[in-house]
Amino acid sequence: MTDLTQYRIEHDLLGEAPVPENVYYGIQTQRAVENFQISGVQLNHYVNLPRALAMVKKACALANRDLGMLDAQKAEAISDACDEIIEGRLHDQFVVDMIQGGAGTSTNMNANEVICNRALELMGHRRGEYQYLHPNTHVNMAQSTNDVYPTAMRLAMVLKHKTLLVAIKSLKNALDVKANEFKDILKMGRTQLQDAVPMTLGQEFRAFSTTIGEDVQRISEMAALLREVNLGGTAIGTGITADSRYAPLAVKYLTEISGQEMILAGDLVEATSDMGAFVIFSSALKRLAVKLSKISNDLRLLSSGPLCGFNEINLPEMQPGSSIMPGKVNPVIPEAMNQIAFHVIGNDLVVTLASEAAQLQLNYAEPVLVYKILESIQQLSSGMNMLTEKCIKGITANREVCQSYVDNSVGLVTALNPYLGYENSSRIAKIALKSGRRVVDLVLEEGLLTEEQLKEILKPENMIAPLNLSQSAH
Amino acid sequence: MTDLTQYRIEHDLLGEAPVPENVYYGIQTQRAVENFQISGVQLNHYVNLPRALAMVKKACALANRDLGMLDAQKAEAISDACDEIIEGRLHDQFVVDMIQGGAGTSTNMNANEVICNRALELMGHRRGEYQYLHPNTHVNMAQSTNDVYPTAMRLAMVLKHKTLLVAIKSLKNALDVKANEFKDILKMGRTQLQDAVPMTLGQEFRAFSTTIGEDVQRISEMAALLREVNLGGTAIGTGITADSRYAPLAVKYLTEISGQEMILAGDLVEATSDMGAFVIFSSALKRLAVKLSKISNDLRLLSSGPLCGFNEINLPEMQPGSSIMPGKVNPVIPEAMNQIAFHVIGNDLVVTLASEAAQLQLNYAEPVLVYKILESIQQLSSGMNMLTEKCIKGITANREVCQSYVDNSVGLVTALNPYLGYENSSRIAKIALKSGRRVVDLVLEEGLLTEEQLKEILKPENMIAPLNLSQSAH
Amino acid sequence: MTDLTQYRIEHDLLGEAPVPENVYYGIQTQRAVENFQISGVQLNHYVNLPRALAMVKKACALANRDLGMLDAQKAEAISDACDEIIEGRLHDQFVVDMIQGGAGTSTNMNANEVICNRALELMGHRRGEYQYLHPNTHVNMAQSTNDVYPTAMRLAMVLKHKTLLVAIKSLKNALDVKANEFKDILKMGRTQLQDAVPMTLGQEFRAFSTTIGEDVQRISEMAALLREVNLGGTAIGTGITADSRYAPLAVKYLTEISGQEMILAGDLVEATSDMGAFVIFSSALKRLAVKLSKISNDLRLLSSGPLCGFNEINLPEMQPGSSIMPGKVNPVIPEAMNQIAFHVIGNDLVVTLASEAAQLQLNYAEPVLVYKILESIQQLSSGMNMLTEKCIKGITANREVCQSYVDNSVGLVTALNPYLGYENSSRIAKIALKSGRRVVDLVLEEGLLTEEQLKEILKPENMIAPLNLSQSAH
Amino acid sequence: MTDLTQYRIEHDLLGEAPVPENVYYGIQTQRAVENFQISGVQLNHYVNLPRALAMVKKACALANRDLGMLDAQKAEAISDACDEIIEGRLHDQFVVDMIQGGAGTSTNMNANEVICNRALELMGHRRGEYQYLHPNTHVNMAQSTNDVYPTAMRLAMVLKHKTLLVAIKSLKNALDVKANEFKDILKMGRTQLQDAVPMTLGQEFRAFSTTIGEDVQRISEMAALLREVNLGGTAIGTGITADSRYAPLAVKYLTEISGQEMILAGDLVEATSDMGAFVIFSSALKRLAVKLSKISNDLRLLSSGPLCGFNEINLPEMQPGSSIMPGKVNPVIPEAMNQIAFHVIGNDLVVTLASEAAQLQLNYAEPVLVYKILESIQQLSSGMNMLTEKCIKGITANREVCQSYVDNSVGLVTALNPYLGYENSSRIAKIALKSGRRVVDLVLEEGLLTEEQLKEILKPENMIAPLNLSQSAH
Repeated sequence: MTDLTQYRIEHDLLGEAPVPENVYYGIQTQRAVENFQISGVQLNHYVNLPRALAMVKKACALANRDLGMLDAQKAEAISDACDEIIEGRLHDQFVVDMIQGGAGTSTNMNANEVICNRALELMGHRRGEYQYLHPNTHVNMAQSTNDVYPTAMRLAMVLKHKTLLVAIKSLKNALDVKANEFKDILKMGRTQLQDAVPMTLGQEFRAFSTTIGEDVQRISEMAALLREVNLGGTAIGTGITADSRYAPLAVKYLTEISGQEMILAGDLVEATSDMGAFVIFSSALKRLAVKLSKISNDLRLLSSGPLCGFNEINLPEMQPGSSIMPGKVNPVIPEAMNQIAFHVIGNDLVVTLASEAAQLQLNYAEPVLVYKILESIQQLSSGMNMLTEKCIKGITANREVCQSYVDNSVGLVTALNPYLGYENSSRIAKIALKSGRRVVDLVLEEGLLTEEQLKEILKPENMIAPLNLSQSAH
Repeated sequence: MTDLTQYRIEHDLLGEAPVPENVYYGIQTQRAVENFQISGVQLNHYVNLPRALAMVKKACALANRDLGMLDAQKAEAISDACDEIIEGRLHDQFVVDMIQGGAGTSTNMNANEVICNRALELMGHRRGEYQYLHPNTHVNMAQSTNDVYPTAMRLAMVLKHKTLLVAIKSLKNALDVKANEFKDILKMGRTQLQDAVPMTLGQEFRAFSTTIGEDVQRISEMAALLREVNLGGTAIGTGITADSRYAPLAVKYLTEISGQEMILAGDLVEATSDMGAFVIFSSALKRLAVKLSKISNDLRLLSSGPLCGFNEINLPEMQPGSSIMPGKVNPVIPEAMNQIAFHVIGNDLVVTLASEAAQLQLNYAEPVLVYKILESIQQLSSGMNMLTEKCIKGITANREVCQSYVDNSVGLVTALNPYLGYENSSRIAKIALKSGRRVVDLVLEEGLLTEEQLKEILKPENMIAPLNLSQSAH
Repeated sequence: MTDLTQYRIEHDLLGEAPVPENVYYGIQTQRAVENFQISGVQLNHYVNLPRALAMVKKACALANRDLGMLDAQKAEAISDACDEIIEGRLHDQFVVDMIQGGAGTSTNMNANEVICNRALELMGHRRGEYQYLHPNTHVNMAQSTNDVYPTAMRLAMVLKHKTLLVAIKSLKNALDVKANEFKDILKMGRTQLQDAVPMTLGQEFRAFSTTIGEDVQRISEMAALLREVNLGGTAIGTGITADSRYAPLAVKYLTEISGQEMILAGDLVEATSDMGAFVIFSSALKRLAVKLSKISNDLRLLSSGPLCGFNEINLPEMQPGSSIMPGKVNPVIPEAMNQIAFHVIGNDLVVTLASEAAQLQLNYAEPVLVYKILESIQQLSSGMNMLTEKCIKGITANREVCQSYVDNSVGLVTALNPYLGYENSSRIAKIALKSGRRVVDLVLEEGLLTEEQLKEILKPENMIAPLNLSQSAH
Repeated sequence: MTDLTQYRIEHDLLGEAPVPENVYYGIQTQRAVENFQISGVQLNHYVNLPRALAMVKKACALANRDLGMLDAQKAEAISDACDEIIEGRLHDQFVVDMIQGGAGTSTNMNANEVICNRALELMGHRRGEYQYLHPNTHVNMAQSTNDVYPTAMRLAMVLKHKTLLVAIKSLKNALDVKANEFKDILKMGRTQLQDAVPMTLGQEFRAFSTTIGEDVQRISEMAALLREVNLGGTAIGTGITADSRYAPLAVKYLTEISGQEMILAGDLVEATSDMGAFVIFSSALKRLAVKLSKISNDLRLLSSGPLCGFNEINLPEMQPGSSIMPGKVNPVIPEAMNQIAFHVIGNDLVVTLASEAAQLQLNYAEPVLVYKILESIQQLSSGMNMLTEKCIKGITANREVCQSYVDNSVGLVTALNPYLGYENSSRIAKIALKSGRRVVDLVLEEGLLTEEQLKEILKPENMIAPLNLSQSAH
């Protein structure tokens, strides 16, 4: 808790204000906190965000030092302060609301002030003694919010998306395990919710695995676009106040410090207001959400019942399903995943709207965009881990139910198409559906195929994959 | 076809251009057609749109006449030309693309020019002889696109939404017929796709009817907001060029001519740029779409199978379901309804985006907004009529399937809750699910209730509605 | 902090688990906390949510008591526990994530368990001694998540939307003050960002006030739809386990306890799965967001500059605008408001998606829907208060800039339309724009009107409102 | 017009029906036309759609012939009929509504029937004599709607997106021409609509060019994902009824026939229901729309005025701007482009919703998805061509206006930051803004820099690009 008797006086363009002595942020951060009481989610909620800001600030300080703009002692103090933040300290000082006006200026100043005050301490001064080191003149040297902020936000996303990739891979692996486990369980496939033709439950889970697995590559590709930054463009991309050698040097340092390959954009004016990489990265998150929602829907359908539904699989029981219906267990994990998917789709719309709001040389709406992308990454990661551990891994199959569907279904008639033709097959199917008799019996009765031929054609292994028709009963 | 040798020369602010002699529109319409080749959907695609424009133009002419601004002969000619359009003639002359720049100016000028040229004919002149009657000076007198266009668009929606209300009511009626027809068919309700407690199929269809029926009132209420117009506000709502008695008079005439109660907005400056009524009316369409999608989803689920699904109801067969799977019939009508619903939800986003694009005294994006609202009304109307006639009316129930679900379900145990308590009921349910034994047998075996008590509690009529517990087995 | 050595053992359908001795929630809440680690936002984040749950639980207990189902002592203990929660205590025990599977069962059980354990204490027992009072059998008596949860969520929204109405009214009032303050400042209106015709700055702010003011009524009307609840419908709306007199009695008590008129839905089956009221209420929030975004855009445009923009008004300076550009002050408050608007529009999409996800007798996705609506209400309220206090109230006008626009603009020519006709006026306007000469001078030079006539027509008071043309220069 | 006396009788699973003698489609197409009267947009509206269907059908016929399943004469007739469609004939026979139930079955059957009947003619038979060649047995041999339809739709998009790429490149080129033309015009950059620092108008247009140019690559990459097809997977991806050598052979033929590299998906079960490629391709279209909207917004802002706005550039005059305000010209072309962008964003939501609707082995909602993607491609192409030809190419600059902004702006002070420090610069800026005095004069007066230094620092070429600070006035 702040001791209310102890303040230091700071000033900015608008005048003076007391700032609690024991905080590392300064007057501009404090104004921002007062101005923006919106989401209640502070910058430090996303741990990669203060880290990315510190990495950028350190890279800039080192570049400025190399170019002789910043003396070595100041640069070292700034760098050391940044290292502390990178290591996870001082995050509680990043207190501005994720939704803020000012195109990220408050976030940038929050970083400048915290780093400055910590560096002042490391230099043997007291917090607030900006005559020795200044948040703007030195920590923000050759920088503008308009290049530092997008650069740091992109880096934060790049860092954070790694956990997403891990979560995708875990889910894919769990699905593969089930695909193998269920590879011999014959069942009926369904199209448009109507009985179609046979397949294995393993094929169904393999399809889940395939579709999810593809997004490792897709999301990596889109994340690669985030690596292109406008650092050194300063206010509007023209690089005003920056040395001509500064931009590539700062980006080189940023790559070293972060361990992430970051690239300098070719057109810094464009890169300063363009939100294209955010739009398409968010879209890739949305695509993943759509797939996860589809899979969750399928899991809920396949496990519907137990007596009045499909009842092909059982999801692990995670909690009692009802406060009133004894014995009921619900598919709560896929249900939560579905809702996360809806959330991510909504967030993607926010990103679209915020991107479209760019005007002339800048986009004022970047903060909400950043917030929603980071939130989507986080919820998708948590959601997939939840789905993997609390649902997929524990799924069991009802082999007999699956088999009985195959045994009774008229859908087998499709396999006879190449032998009977479509018209004949249709006629048989119609009779079977009306009479409740089995397709096999009707075909035999009409002498259309022999029992041997039918047995061959309707072998499970012949129905769940294309067969060599030249060697078949044809 | 236009005879290319016969043109008249017209001019406007930008200069001269030849206009085919045989068309009623003029140079400004022609420029707009050349400028905007986007959707391919012309103004005349929505029959209420030329009609509403003509109604507004007639109302203005009569008001101007009454105020002595427009001489009686000119007013009469304009009025007669408008009547022809109201009756359905000359619609082929409304040729501008629904998506157009200029905030509707091209639409307004299309109306001004067609009416002017037809009126010139009625006055004994030739098309293009604007010295006798001018599209702007006379037909557009005391008007601006900025008041005439929104007024006409609102009126077009008000006129068009009547067909929507009719379609809703027809659908509701068809659902009510089924609710009555199925009122004795006992089935299991499902929550979260898991077996819940008994209900009747009639109750399920009644719920469809109830939810759809509510939207007659909701959409009527929202449409009422469209009746408030800014006619007389002219360019920006200040009424420049208009007489102070003109606005209420024009709106009075508009009400008379259209047969629709139209109201003059209280703050015409606000009314000129505000899109609020469109936003909430489109939202009401979206709400209807959400409900229709939910119902369509349910119909597809309930008719899933026939052998590997719920199979509680049968949708009428409208077309063969598959090019490869003989005998397959799919729920094509609800599937089409679902897609219309998605379309309407997407359209609502366009309306939202277009509304947010209002700037200062006007919204330039009104044309796409109008287009999407009219399209949504049309597709919802067609879709509901399709659903009513080609699906709902022909639905039949599989009474035995429904009953068998009830007979075998563990969900009956819920009805015993008030007598056994939640813990006991849970225990029984668990045993029943594991063993496959019937709840009734287990309860009897444990002597928890007598056969008589059970019979009373589990009477269908006692499970599908709240019972008077004081008189029951309690 | 939990003392890890002190646990009580609880059990449910899935088995036993230790629950910290000192918490009021029980095993089912604990399972839900473990299952759903998604948004990090707990139920207690929205203070009206635990309160609404407690109000519903109390209403049900009193109804059950009156019907003789629940003995008076138990009912009193439950009621007293609920009162504590209504007064704001025990909220830290509502710990489930806002995004959860199970259609709200975890939220309902969280309430049941906390109330039960607190009531046990009040009865002189220890937490967990459910043999004396049971979370399901007694606290949840005659209830299901499926009626209690939606009812409580609706009530929470009804309670919360009051602060929204207050915020709208405050904003409207502040805008009215400015409308009056600026009523004599003449300026040019702009349509499609092009110079149009004169108006006053007061008219512009009055239009803001009008459009915002309308939404008090609109949101109240939509909130009224939330008052219709399905309490007593229990599991699927059929009222199973509930007495036939229970539903109206419980709703009557709920109205008394909450001070909010709540109404029993006519078709409880429909009301259990229908999300229509949420869809349209969220749409009304979206409509408000669209309006706030439009106003924020206008404020940013009107204050653009100071030297290279419109510069008609000054927003109060809230914080330094740039880390690199000295002296720059940015419109940070409207920028934050815009972003809130985008957020609310995105949230509305989530609500739409979640609503469409209803299946058969229930909607599993209600939790994310509730979360997003409450968040939208909260952010809109905070945002409007921020806009009112930190922006609108401090706006000042640049009267001279505004006047100079009027003096130099060609837009005055519109006022001459009724006297010169459209063709003449167009010609004059074209010359004026090309030559840079003033419209007035050109008209005089051509002898089209006398100086006196011009003076009369171009009087400010004659250009900003419709005039009585019969008495004018005509 | 159909001669109503001349019909042939066709039959299908549902029974018999008369089909007009002179049409090439058959009974199933006719049923679909009756069933789906929704959008009024027929398949033939998108010329690549019948073409792509014919290419796929031809590829399948040739593969079946090679495998000995289809005799050579039949294959040749089918192939010849397909060629006619590929060349543009018979498109008027593709009459089903773009929005249809049945997951594309009606589209597939429309193709099967038209090709069959035309092939029958080529074989010397009459339309409808299916005993010689059957729409299902022969034309649809080894095919299902579920592999043929998505394959053809993907191919149609691949074919169509070429025109989009051409339109993007034309727009980029036009922007580059302007960037070069305006490379010496100095102006003030604006961030958050507030005066920032100098740049050239050429840099501003170059940024437009850069951002648009990037999307050639992005859209190509996403379109590449569409090339992966499930042809040969038949009903659910298991390839039932198809020979094991068929799928790769058919895809090889498809590549040859279409001239487009098409690839067989690795997991055909997954590929049958997965909509991932559509989601991300549509997202790339949305990204382009967002960029076009931003550019259009900027063009409207920069050309705002002429007297009461920014007035830095002039858009070509395309049509009179107002029906009431003489001389007004509006930015109608960017306004139309903005509306197209909104439309595409809305369409992307429809695609998202339709994709999420995939269930189990298929997505029933693919038709509306296909429709909206093709529409987006078409409108973006038309819109960009419109923007290029009717707007960008004719833009002129107001050099003096731009220069005067630079001369008077306080934003120059930023360039002095490296020399004066942030605090000193802020102080000077504040004085300049309050007093209206020029920054240069204040700096000289205070003796902070010499006139020579200032001249060097404030050289245009030094302000619009990073300078070598070691050689500068530092």
